[in-house]
This record gives sequence, structure tokens and C-alpha cells, in this order.
Amino acid sequence: MKITFCCTDTKAEPWLRGLAAALPAADISVWQPGAPQADYAVVWAPPQQFIDEQPRLQALFNIGAGVDALLRLRLPPGLRVVRLDDAGMAVQMAEYVSHALIRHFREFDGYEADMRAGRWSYRKPRLRQDFPVGVMGLGVLGERVARAVAQFDFPVRGWSRGAKQIAGVRCYSGAQGFNDFLAASRVLVNLLPLTPETQDIMNRDTLARLVPGAYVINVARGAHLVDEDLLALIDAGQVAGATLDVFRTEPLPAGHPFWSHPRITLTPHTSARTLRDESIAQIAGKIAALARGEPVAGVVDAARGY
Amino acid sequence: MKITFCCTDTKAEPWLRGLAAALPAADISVWQPGAPQADYAVVWAPPQQFIDEQPRLQALFNIGAGVDALLRLRLPPGLRVVRLDDAGMAVQMAEYVSHALIRHFREFDGYEADMRAGRWSYRKPRLRQDFPVGVMGLGVLGERVARAVAQFDFPVRGWSRGAKQIAGVRCYSGAQGFNDFLAASRVLVNLLPLTPETQDIMNRDTLARLVPGAYVINVARGAHLVDEDLLALIDAGQVAGATLDVFRTEPLPAGHPFWSHPRITLTPHTSARTLRDESIAQIAGKIAALARGEPVAGVVDAARGY
Repeated sequence: MKITFCCTDTKAEPWLRGLAAALPAADISVWQPGAPQADYAVVWAPPQQFIDEQPRLQALFNIGAGVDALLRLRLPPGLRVVRLDDAGMAVQMAEYVSHALIRHFREFDGYEADMRAGRWSYRKPRLRQDFPVGVMGLGVLGERVARAVAQFDFPVRGWSRGAKQIAGVRCYSGAQGFNDFLAASRVLVNLLPLTPETQDIMNRDTLARLVPGAYVINVARGAHLVDEDLLALIDAGQVAGATLDVFRTEPLPAGHPFWSHPRITLTPHTSARTLRDESIAQIAGKIAALARGEPVAGVVDAARGY
Repeated sequence: MKITFCCTDTKAEPWLRGLAAALPAADISVWQPGAPQADYAVVWAPPQQFIDEQPRLQALFNIGAGVDALLRLRLPPGLRVVRLDDAGMAVQMAEYVSHALIRHFREFDGYEADMRAGRWSYRKPRLRQDFPVGVMGLGVLGERVARAVAQFDFPVRGWSRGAKQIAGVRCYSGAQGFNDFLAASRVLVNLLPLTPETQDIMNRDTLARLVPGAYVINVARGAHLVDEDLLALIDAGQVAGATLDVFRTEPLPAGHPFWSHPRITLTPHTSARTLRDESIAQIAGKIAALARGEPVAGVVDAARGY
């Protein structure tokens, strides 16, 4: 069995060593133009040339949760795209969102700044019933985030394309439920897959439907958010601020107004990093299962986009 | 039934209104020197004179979780001291500690500072198995904090005077278990009551037993921590930093080295604020129960100190 590795911005050597240890019978190498045909590929944002030159591939294993970059390529019909399911990312997302939510709700930013300035002063505690949290996207990551937030006694709402049920979360679904979901949410957490339907989903119209004094936490993809609409709503006082981990162009271009905005907290696409050991174990297990003719979890529905 | 209110640094009027609404038959007023004898008192850091002038009191209701200030007074034997149990404080503690822990573990401070400086750069993700969290004090607040931390998949240890069992938490107890607990913890969270036994419990000797690169989160009382020992261990590189909400003197005196220390994050004793509505409901319920001759939860054992 031949495995090829084609991951942009990723050090190959530890992945090759890990995959070789987990699949001792496999022949594993880094893809280069003209490389021999492989059966399986481990990929992150590969070029179209890679797909075109590897027609014998049975499955692509994406080393992240979002497959939007992969689905923008022309893929042969029948080529399975498999994404990581969890592999240590869900807990990181729960951490990231809980931290951003608590920091905003409890005003720790302001308290820490006061103390750095030598000021010991109190703010009136806010009531958590005034901060209903809405999680868009209720897959493995979204559900884990919703449960984490519920643990801190915030009212939690969830929205997904198809109907879901999660204990402690008021779930909405479909286009019909979307406006009700927005009107019932003050803190909006985005964990949707990026598809043609969800692109630009956070815009002037939708963000304005949130409970006034809203707060946006985007940990999915930059293209879900219309940057200038968020800025306009913050300027208008409708939205109180945002924590953003993902951007339409990454790294965020110099001069973008997000860089210096006092109400926007930024991190460099680090909300849920791919953990190598967990990912290698998961991918190796799935390759072995496919080789035995067994089904695997995480196969992407290309028509649906996730 | 007469109730007197004697709370330093607290606006009396909303408390009186809330208690009157919950206990319509009671006569409720703010204590002044020479005031008539009352049956029950709602207090925060009252003066000794108050105690001396009110010998007919059946119970003191403390509007906080820690009763150390109260137990420093000379109290008549038989006077019950009742503390708030939870009343919205446990979830705030879970929030505060989770936020401080995640912020340190995920280096969000550093990431946010990088982004503010216009730098898009990654750090190697840390492994949560390298960050075992030790919670000292496993009462209502400590147990809630331990459970919150466990939800983020950190290894969690707990220590208390008497043996406890909490699912998902490796519990240690007594003087015997204390050193093992310290050696098994990297992030130390303090939620102990302040008693003669626990005063100065975080000192050069104990903090040096923690896993190297330790981190201290103090949300109990300032007198649990020997300030100069923490500073010395940070300078020596044994302790990586601290988040401190409580101090030996509050407000923290001008010129104290904590104010400007780059590795210490400060908040002004705001980790768990007394929520008035929840507290009034709880205290009114307990006064009514005592008046009917029924037992109530939260009665302090003066000999034990909590």
C-alpha cells in the first residue's frame, strides 16, 4: 500500500515517521510532481496538480476539520474525502470559546487593564440570563462547545441545517429557525462548515437580528463573516465586540482594520490546532479499515460540502 | 421577628427591600450603635461593638462564603454563624478559574499581545497531560471548580482536610496526602477556607514542591499566600506565574510588587461576587426555617473555622 503526503505549511518528517510506525507495511513518502501513484493521501490544501496527477487515489485524508479548501478543487467522482473527527480539536474549541465568552461576560479585559493601571475598582456584575449564547453548527465541535458553555449556566441555543437534540440546549434548525435562533442569541459562536450556503452568513442583516449588545466569536472560517458589516454594527453600537480566530485572508493582511480595533480580540487561527499524534492514530486506523474494506467515519458528502 | 443589617461596604437599601419582600412579617433595619435587640443579623465584616451590643442574636448570616473576618471577633458561645452556600458563587468561581487556567495553558495572553503588535505567529501547542491541575479545598466551590476543569480534559487532583471522592478527580487528603498532591499538580488553585491551619499555606516550601513551571491561581484569601515567597519562586523560574484575585490587604496597597509584575495577572477580589437576589432568597429561607425550629445548611463549625 502506497501513501502520499501533500500538506502545505506542515513539517512532513514527524508525520511520515508517525504514519510509518502505525502502518509498518505501508510505503509512505512526500508527494512531488511526477511521483508514483499512491492509494491514499494525507493532505492539507494540496494543489490541483496533485489531484490531477494521482488518479488512483482511493481516499484523501484532510488533516483538519474544515474541508472547504479541498472541495474547491476539481476532484474525480468517487474519490472519498475524509476529515478528522475530533482528534483533540473539540476540547480545544470548547476551551477557546469558553475563554472568549467568560472574558467578555466577566469583563476580565477591563479588570486586568484597570489593575495594570493601578486602579482597584468594581463593575456591576452582569446577569448570565442576559447573555444567551447561540452556537451555529452542531457537529462534533459545535456540540462539545455548546455543552461546555451550558456548564457555566448560560442559556444556550444551537442552530444547524438539520434538526438536532442536545440536552440543555434549545435547538433550532433550517432557514425557518435561523431568525428565531438569532433573535434568541446575544453571543454568537460560529462553528459552521464553509459551503456556498454558509459563506457570508454573518452579515449586516443577520448580525443586526441578535440581542442588542451582541458579541461574535468566529472560530470556523473567515469567509463566514462580512468584515465591513461587523465593523459597521460595532460602530453603530448594535454589536459590542468580537473575538476572531479566522480571517478571509490568512495571515490577516497588514492594514486590515481588525488589527487595531479596540473592541476586537484577535488570535492567529489557533483555536483548534491539529494534534499530530491523535491525528496520525486516527488516519492510520481509517486507512487500515478502508484497506480491509470496512466503512469509516468522517467521509465528506461533497454535494452538502461537509 | 427583628432582623438587623450590618454590612461594611454594602448598599443597604436593596437588601432591606429584598428581605422585607421575602419575610413580610419581619421588622428589618440597619444596625446603628444603640439599636434595639434583634433576633437575626445579616452581616459582612461587622465591628466587635455590634456583636457586644446584640447579645440576643440567634444567628449571624454572612453574605459571603468565607467567614474568617467574622471568626476573628469574640462571639458568644452558641451564636450560630451561617455562611452562604453557593448562591451563584460556585459557577462564578468555575468561570474565573477556567478562564485563568485556559488563558495560561493556551498562551492567549501572548497570542493577543502578538496580534496587537501586528505579529501573526504560532507557538508550539502545549499538551494538557503536562498541566495537571490541583484544587485545594473541595467544598461546594472547590468541587464545582474541579468538575469544570475536568471537563476540559485536564488531569485534576483535589486536596481537602477530610477524605473526599469526586468522579474524575484524584483526591488526596490530610497532612499526609498534601505533599503527594503538590508533587502531582502543576496549576495550583486555592479555594480553602482561611483558618489558622491554612494561613500561609502557599509558601516557599509548598510551592517549590509543585511540578516545575507551576502556575498559581488564588481565589480564596490573600493570607493563604506568602507574597514574597511567590515572587522569589517566579524569579527563580520554578513558578511560571500567577493569577491573583485576593490579597493580604485589600485594596492591594500602592507600591506592592504584584501591581507591576509581568507574570502576575490581577483582579480586584471579583472572582465570585455575592449575588444579591440569590443571597436574599437563601438567607430569608434559612431565617424562616430557624424560626420554625428547623435545621439549616451552612452553619459554621467555629472550632474548625469553616
